[in-house]
Amino acid sequence: MSRWKKLGVIAGGNALPLTVAAATAARNEDIFFVRLKGLADPELDQYPGVDCALGEAGKIIRSLKDANCDAVLLAGMVQRPELKDLKVDWRGAAILPGLLAAASKGDGAILEFLVKTLESEGFIVIGVDEAVNDLLATEGAIGKVTPDAQSLSDIRKAAAVVRALGEFDVGQGAVVANGLVLAIEAAEGTDAMLDRCGTLPNNIQAGGVLVKRPKPGQELRVDLPVIGTETIRRAAAVGLSGIAIEASVALIVDRPKVIELADEAGLFVYGFKEVDLRNA
Amino acid sequence: MSRWKKLGVIAGGNALPLTVAAATAARNEDIFFVRLKGLADPELDQYPGVDCALGEAGKIIRSLKDANCDAVLLAGMVQRPELKDLKVDWRGAAILPGLLAAASKGDGAILEFLVKTLESEGFIVIGVDEAVNDLLATEGAIGKVTPDAQSLSDIRKAAAVVRALGEFDVGQGAVVANGLVLAIEAAEGTDAMLDRCGTLPNNIQAGGVLVKRPKPGQELRVDLPVIGTETIRRAAAVGLSGIAIEASVALIVDRPKVIELADEAGLFVYGFKEVDLRNA
Repeated sequence: MSRWKKLGVIAGGNALPLTVAAATAARNEDIFFVRLKGLADPELDQYPGVDCALGEAGKIIRSLKDANCDAVLLAGMVQRPELKDLKVDWRGAAILPGLLAAASKGDGAILEFLVKTLESEGFIVIGVDEAVNDLLATEGAIGKVTPDAQSLSDIRKAAAVVRALGEFDVGQGAVVANGLVLAIEAAEGTDAMLDRCGTLPNNIQAGGVLVKRPKPGQELRVDLPVIGTETIRRAAAVGLSGIAIEASVALIVDRPKVIELADEAGLFVYGFKEVDLRNA
Repeated sequence: MSRWKKLGVIAGGNALPLTVAAATAARNEDIFFVRLKGLADPELDQYPGVDCALGEAGKIIRSLKDANCDAVLLAGMVQRPELKDLKVDWRGAAILPGLLAAASKGDGAILEFLVKTLESEGFIVIGVDEAVNDLLATEGAIGKVTPDAQSLSDIRKAAAVVRALGEFDVGQGAVVANGLVLAIEAAEGTDAMLDRCGTLPNNIQAGGVLVKRPKPGQELRVDLPVIGTETIRRAAAVGLSGIAIEASVALIVDRPKVIELADEAGLFVYGFKEVDLRNA
């Protein structure tokens, strides 16, 4: 039983909004999509919804209210746009100064600002984990492969790196191989960071681990760390041993396919808890 | 008056070894180069020296002793090689286990291990700042351009990011633009990190600052953060506002040319002190 009557989803890129649609349909609930132009998957067109530019805050809020949505979910990836592509409407212009101030602090600050704006309009803002229960990473090995002692040690280090960067509102990922920090995610995103590991000398990158976890203190309803089939493909392409994500907070989109690909490639996918890092 | 009789330089890539040669010649001191194969600048061939592979530790130490060197300086960039390219001799094989153990902790640990190995052979290990006094970055604006308030704030943030990563033996650099952490250096090096900033959406990268500083606790005689003409060129190419380095510990190679290029490009080059970061 959901704590909302009708869910509105503001949909950016990647497969997460479609996963939300499927989960909602399985519960026989109505759904409404605000499809962000140039970002949302065209397959979302089959559901009730509207196309909006990122800056059309007025149109977005009005559409959600007209559709009788009482809860809103932000799902999918949104790259920072060029200012000229924002296409702000009046409402968008009104919140722009606050948005830009938040933007200078990092993505986390932007999302916090958006959540507050939606809440001030009376919406319940929910996390994707609440809309789709089985997305959250579980504890331990997910799939056939389990991390060995070296990989567990690398997971601890990479997790500590992301934690140390938390106060700077930086990315959520790092790659460590045999104790050496190969790459740290900042504005370029996880995919670009993974690809970069493939350009390092061979003996550096052999058998590394990608760790994704939320920044400490992050607004957990939005921008949860996500992995999916593309993460597995790229991690395999650059020769990593596996991927570790924080259990109960990171998301796995299309889990069956993720497991299948990881098993095929011989990669582990591992859900860790903070307490595991301390004890291991 | 130097505290050594004859300096031996183990020379990797970039212009730093040539700068050392020029400074030593100006003091009428002898110098001897161990030119690392595939790395050292061919111009070093004009000085007394020997060509060695990275793994030929026995030949390196013997050559330095045969040339009557009592002090050794490690200068120039050394990328981690493929194991098969190391070409270890007997002595190289003997120190390899210790080297590999250090390698798993990071570049800082490798350098510490090399310093200890050289010291155990009776050499004084000196820093490049001792061999070339005027290389060290001075305080304040170096060149015509000075950082504005936003840039000073970005310098503080980037410097704090590098400091926070110190315990992980990661790179020495980060780029921050208008409060947003664009890129953090790990195994890819400063040049690749700068180039990556050019691939981010335009409004992200406008007016960023590159900060280079030593990791806290770093062995300061080797691997000091260095900037040179190439750093200025790349920073200008991706639209940064300037470069800040820690005064008295970071090095500027070919300072006159660095200043000329920076002034032409309208970039600041700024030497900061930890105390400036706190007060500003």
